[in-house]
Amino acid sequence: MAPGRVTTGRLLSAFTQIRHYSAPAERSIPAAKQKYVPTSGTYPKGFLAGSAHAGVKASNTKYDDIALVVSETPCPAAAVITRNVFKAAPIVESQKVLEKWNNQNIRGVIVNSGCANAVTGLKGAEDAVTMARTTDACFGESESSGGPASLVMSTGVIGQRLPIDRIEAAIPKAHASLGSTHEHWMRAAQAICTTDTFPKLLSRTFTLPSHPETEYSIAGMTKGAGMIHPNMDAAIAPEAMHAFLRMGVNKSFNSISIDGDTSTNDTVALFANGVAAPSGFEPIKFPGSPTRPESTSPDAAALITVMNDFLTDLAKLVVRDGEGATKFITIRVVSDVSIVVARRVAMSISTSTLLKTAIYGKDANWGRILCAIGYAPGIMENPGQDFRTGKLVQAKGGKIIHVPHKRPPVDINRLSLAFLPADGSEELKLFTRGEPENVDEARAKEILEMEDLEISVKLNDDGGAGESSSEQHELFEAVVWTCDLSHEYVTINGDYRT
Amino acid sequence: MAPGRVTTGRLLSAFTQIRHYSAPAERSIPAAKQKYVPTSGTYPKGFLAGSAHAGVKASNTKYDDIALVVSETPCPAAAVITRNVFKAAPIVESQKVLEKWNNQNIRGVIVNSGCANAVTGLKGAEDAVTMARTTDACFGESESSGGPASLVMSTGVIGQRLPIDRIEAAIPKAHASLGSTHEHWMRAAQAICTTDTFPKLLSRTFTLPSHPETEYSIAGMTKGAGMIHPNMDAAIAPEAMHAFLRMGVNKSFNSISIDGDTSTNDTVALFANGVAAPSGFEPIKFPGSPTRPESTSPDAAALITVMNDFLTDLAKLVVRDGEGATKFITIRVVSDVSIVVARRVAMSISTSTLLKTAIYGKDANWGRILCAIGYAPGIMENPGQDFRTGKLVQAKGGKIIHVPHKRPPVDINRLSLAFLPADGSEELKLFTRGEPENVDEARAKEILEMEDLEISVKLNDDGGAGESSSEQHELFEAVVWTCDLSHEYVTINGDYRT
Repeated sequence: MAPGRVTTGRLLSAFTQIRHYSAPAERSIPAAKQKYVPTSGTYPKGFLAGSAHAGVKASNTKYDDIALVVSETPCPAAAVITRNVFKAAPIVESQKVLEKWNNQNIRGVIVNSGCANAVTGLKGAEDAVTMARTTDACFGESESSGGPASLVMSTGVIGQRLPIDRIEAAIPKAHASLGSTHEHWMRAAQAICTTDTFPKLLSRTFTLPSHPETEYSIAGMTKGAGMIHPNMDAAIAPEAMHAFLRMGVNKSFNSISIDGDTSTNDTVALFANGVAAPSGFEPIKFPGSPTRPESTSPDAAALITVMNDFLTDLAKLVVRDGEGATKFITIRVVSDVSIVVARRVAMSISTSTLLKTAIYGKDANWGRILCAIGYAPGIMENPGQDFRTGKLVQAKGGKIIHVPHKRPPVDINRLSLAFLPADGSEELKLFTRGEPENVDEARAKEILEMEDLEISVKLNDDGGAGESSSEQHELFEAVVWTCDLSHEYVTINGDYRT
Repeated sequence: MAPGRVTTGRLLSAFTQIRHYSAPAERSIPAAKQKYVPTSGTYPKGFLAGSAHAGVKASNTKYDDIALVVSETPCPAAAVITRNVFKAAPIVESQKVLEKWNNQNIRGVIVNSGCANAVTGLKGAEDAVTMARTTDACFGESESSGGPASLVMSTGVIGQRLPIDRIEAAIPKAHASLGSTHEHWMRAAQAICTTDTFPKLLSRTFTLPSHPETEYSIAGMTKGAGMIHPNMDAAIAPEAMHAFLRMGVNKSFNSISIDGDTSTNDTVALFANGVAAPSGFEPIKFPGSPTRPESTSPDAAALITVMNDFLTDLAKLVVRDGEGATKFITIRVVSDVSIVVARRVAMSISTSTLLKTAIYGKDANWGRILCAIGYAPGIMENPGQDFRTGKLVQAKGGKIIHVPHKRPPVDINRLSLAFLPADGSEELKLFTRGEPENVDEARAKEILEMEDLEISVKLNDDGGAGESSSEQHELFEAVVWTCDLSHEYVTINGDYRT
């Protein structure tokens, strides 16, 4: 994943998608993406959204680039942040706020697009604080007053200072624009965009088993792959916020890949103000055993499902709008060894530039899938297979030596590959238990013409024998979503800062 | 690194480089690459090279795609192979031969381009054996006769069977064409090419300290990043072959990156027939301590230098001809912690598609270098830096916690970045000990207009203080070479199999 990247539209005429700074207005959303932009929504009670124009990038004289989303009642919040060592200044600041307030008493989040405020040194750290404090001041709060505090997020170019004066001037305007309608949320979702071709905003309602008559709402927005903040009006215990969010992020935002980069700014922040909860409702706690949520509170189990589904749908929108993306690729890997193996293999496939360019070119070059499996970190360190004897071998000191392991993580003679067409028609087998299939190229072409493609990888395919056998192994499935690598990706990222 | 990839020349007219199947003849080598193609050479005594046309790809009706390089005297050999789990059939076969003959009594290598014979199942394994045995038969040798044996290499599309009948028919023609002139070597170097825009062949002479009057020769060819075979007429002890090769490969072919892929077929095979050695010369043994070669035989130390330099120059040619490459990028990373840290950081930078597209676009987006450092494997697992306090922090359970380590592998407040211009003019500082520089964009543009660029990363820059201090740390330097990621890379790899 990568932080926001911007282009001005100075593109080669050969390419059909044009990206503007920042989120394009309705007029310029590509026709194929219109279906992902909602025209109405059901937003969580007690939350307000606003936006304003600061001109973070000097070339942006027109579009809002400041967004503010707040809860009228200060509320519990949590954030999951990038693992990049160089965490941007706004992330460090937000984490300090969450730590200081113990995941409670948070007002909302102030966001700017156009500049990531990352690796900007001590001055950059001060700028992040200024953004948060300026927002607090709009609510008549200050650090010394002990009032609720704001989180801060930034996205855009790395290594440049924020034009903090322009941002300070714009924040009160964003505050003045706060409102609760669909249009308010949509304008905020547009303001956080950079190279996005459409604003990414989702909302939905849900109920919890303990009070089926109570309707809750969850809404969230995301840009590129960088900043995500779901907001809900259910009541969650502050100490449980992080666990609910963490669980949801692993299966959603940590399961997508655009270009293999891990940004300095990626943040998912969750807010839950409890405004819709019935009076006397006890805030939901995280189940004792995360792997067996069904064993505990039905509300917690239901909330986990709601969170997972919602974050997954938001994450998929990011892939739909990957820079230059023309394809939406689902990679489904099944292992009988472990989820770690399945995930490593899926992630390695999803970051192979060779495979991603082939899919862009509608070329069924499935050998590249096998190649990417074979060099997956953690897999590559394990022994390979001798094609003639079926024995496990390892290169050591210039010689192939036999290895006595019984069950390798990847076994070429039990590995199977197939394309699953998006229209639900029959799968196309590519490689079955160690032997290449005689692939019908016309059929492959047909499948690759569709926007969506699913790649199925079975690392230990026993051809169904296991089902009737007593040696049945548990199966682990990892699903990762990615997009192709196109000429436009190169255009956008070769010309980002202008 | 990736196996051979082929295109037919069906490219968008906007792109200036045209790639043919297979290695282009003189007429079509890009003008800028002419300087890398030698017009003469000094080849090792007792080696012969030949080539023939098999039509491995049906669309290739014209160009030689079989190459044969052999020693008139069967000789010691060694090979360093890919770490991909799915080692192609020719690799498995070659390793068996080397093992059987204990790194001695090897005749040479038979190579085909156009098809990698990788993940081709049991039939593919048989095809690799057939190639080797057909070659042996040309010399009147067979497995049962106990005569010397041949190694085999293949490069091209993964997952497709070889047209083994056509190859069997062509091998005797390659044998009949064997000769020792520059033209013979050049034709063989052309025959192993796939998407290469020029044949990559190097040769040079050297002497060893014990007999300075004896002139030895080393010659080698490589294609894409896949197959490399240096040949020399010095005498090396069979048991030392692998160690000399391994050491040279680490600093050369394991220090280049085109697109981060690790091919199923990459092989570097070394042959040393000793034909030029003076009579009675004791074959060179590998020094007892690889880290202190100067402590042992002067001949061994000299040979290590010759091998390292030669392999490095061959590897750089691969980068010069990276698919779609317009830039040659040297990444030099200095760490005071370890060579592992320096290398991980250099490799992470070299595989960042965001950085590689920026350099293609001549955009001095240096923030992406820092980003890639921050998510390098092994680095990301270590704590980051709080910009305000300078303290080490780590995200844990949604909170930033302080970490008491003294010397992190990467320290933002001691990290410095610069561009070193190819023309030797003054460096352009980008980021110095935690603070971004006010970069002169016009100067940056000037530097990025040049074909060559060096990126200097100092992970623990003390501003020269260490030189006069008593706390001087040992410094470790890793150098990695890579190229940019261009529109043409996407074109080539989106349309490879046709």
